Amino acid sequence: MAKYSLKDIVLFENCDQNFLRKLETHAHKRRHNKGKVLFFHGDEARSFFVITSGWVKLYRETTEGEQAIINVLPEKHILGETAIFNSNNYPYSAEIIKAAEIVSYPLAELKNEIQTNNNLAMAMLNSMAEYRRRLDREIEHRTLQNAAQRIGCFILRMAQQDDKTPTEVHIPYDKTIVAAHLGMKPETFSRALTKLKTKTGIKVTGSTIELNNLEQLSHYCCTVCSSTFPCENSNITK
Amino acid sequence: MAKYSLKDIVLFENCDQNFLRKLETHAHKRRHNKGKVLFFHGDEARSFFVITSGWVKLYRETTEGEQAIINVLPEKHILGETAIFNSNNYPYSAEIIKAAEIVSYPLAELKNEIQTNNNLAMAMLNSMAEYRRRLDREIEHRTLQNAAQRIGCFILRMAQQDDKTPTEVHIPYDKTIVAAHLGMKPETFSRALTKLKTKTGIKVTGSTIELNNLEQLSHYCCTVCSSTFPCENSNITK
Repeated sequence: MAKYSLKDIVLFENCDQNFLRKLETHAHKRRHNKGKVLFFHGDEARSFFVITSGWVKLYRETTEGEQAIINVLPEKHILGETAIFNSNNYPYSAEIIKAAEIVSYPLAELKNEIQTNNNLAMAMLNSMAEYRRRLDREIEHRTLQNAAQRIGCFILRMAQQDDKTPTEVHIPYDKTIVAAHLGMKPETFSRALTKLKTKTGIKVTGSTIELNNLEQLSHYCCTVCSSTFPCENSNITK
Repeated sequence: MAKYSLKDIVLFENCDQNFLRKLETHAHKRRHNKGKVLFFHGDEARSFFVITSGWVKLYRETTEGEQAIINVLPEKHILGETAIFNSNNYPYSAEIIKAAEIVSYPLAELKNEIQTNNNLAMAMLNSMAEYRRRLDREIEHRTLQNAAQRIGCFILRMAQQDDKTPTEVHIPYDKTIVAAHLGMKPETFSRALTKLKTKTGIKVTGSTIELNNLEQLSHYCCTVCSSTFPCENSNITK
C-alpha cells in the first residue's frame, strides 16, 4: 500500500505537518500473518499502530480463556493509542485475523504532542466521541434487537459503506469473527441467519450476500432501533 | 446541597478558576420531579447539566417506544456535554428517575473553552477514555456473563464504592431501572436474581442486599470477566 500516509488517518488529518514528519522518522513497518498477537491487554504500551492492509481484532480474555471481541478494524485504522489515558497499558489485546501490514509509532511522541497541541486533542475528542456513539448504539442493539436483527443491521451498515447500489455485500472476514463481534455463539449466529433469510429474502452464498429488497431488510432491523436507515453511524468499523 | 461547586465535577477539577467563575454566572438551578424529561435524543443542545442531587437515566428510544438505558447517573455527574462533538445535538434522552436538583450551564461556553484550553481538553479525553473502558467492559459482560453474573457484578461494583466492609449494599433506585440498565426484561431479572441467591448465598430484602460471602460472589461473577475483583473500573456510575 504505497500511497499510505499518516494524513489518511482521521485522527491526524488536521495535524501539523512537522509533528507528522517527526512521527514518520520513528515508523516501523512489518508484515504479520493471521494469528499474530500484536499486544496483550494490560501490557505496557510503548507504541501505537496503524493498519495499512489486512484486518485486526481487538478483544479481551477471561482467566478461563473466553474471548469477547471489542472491535474488528480494517486498513487506515489506528489502535493502541488510548493507552495514553490508561496508565500506559493497553486496554485490550490485538490479534491479526487476516494477513496484515502494520506500522508502529512511539506512543510517547503522541502523548507529548497531545498535551500541547489543542488541534490534536480536539481531533482525538471527536474520534472518541464517535467511538462512544458506536458503543452506545451497540449497547442499545444488544438490549432491543434480536440476533437476526443484529446480523441484518451489520449487513446494512456494510452495504451503506458502498458507493454502488447495495445489491451485493461481501463479508470481508471469517463468519465466526462476525458472530463473535456480534457477541453470538456460532450456533446462535447460524440459526439467526436462517431466520433473517426467511424474514427478509436476503440470499447468502459463501461470504456474498444478495440484497434484493433493502427496504424489507431495513424495516425488519431498524424499527427496533432509535436510528432510521440510512443511519448516522453507518461505518461498521468506527 | 449547599456545598456543591463545579470543582467537584471530575471534568473540571483541574480547570482554570476564571473559566469556572464565568460558567457559574450563567448557572440555572432547578428542582425536578421523577418523570421529568430534561431533553430528548436529537434535540438541539444549548446546555449541559450537573446533577447536584437525585438520579437521572440516559436512554434512547425506538420509533415504537422501546427504551434502551445507556447510563444511570447520581449526583456530581455531568450530562449533555458530549453534544459539542455531535453537531450540537444531544446523543441521548435524559429523564429524572428520582427527584433531583439540576444545574444547567451554557454549552457554548464549554465549547469555546475546550478549543483553546488544553488542560480542559485533556480532562475531557481522560473522562471519555474512562467511559470508553466502561462501555468496553459492558460489551464484554453482555457477551460472556449470564444474567445472574451481570446482576452479581453490578452488586459487587456498588459494594466497592463503599468505604465500609461491604456486608450490605442498598440499591439506590427502582429495581426495574436496574433491570433495564442491565438490558434485561423484568422477568429475566427476577429469575436471574433468584439464581444468583442460590449460587452465592446473598440475601435480598427490598432494596437491601446482604453480602456475607463476598468471595463466593466474586468467584461466581469475576471468573467470566477479564478483570479480577476488586476491579479497575469499580464505579458503577462512570
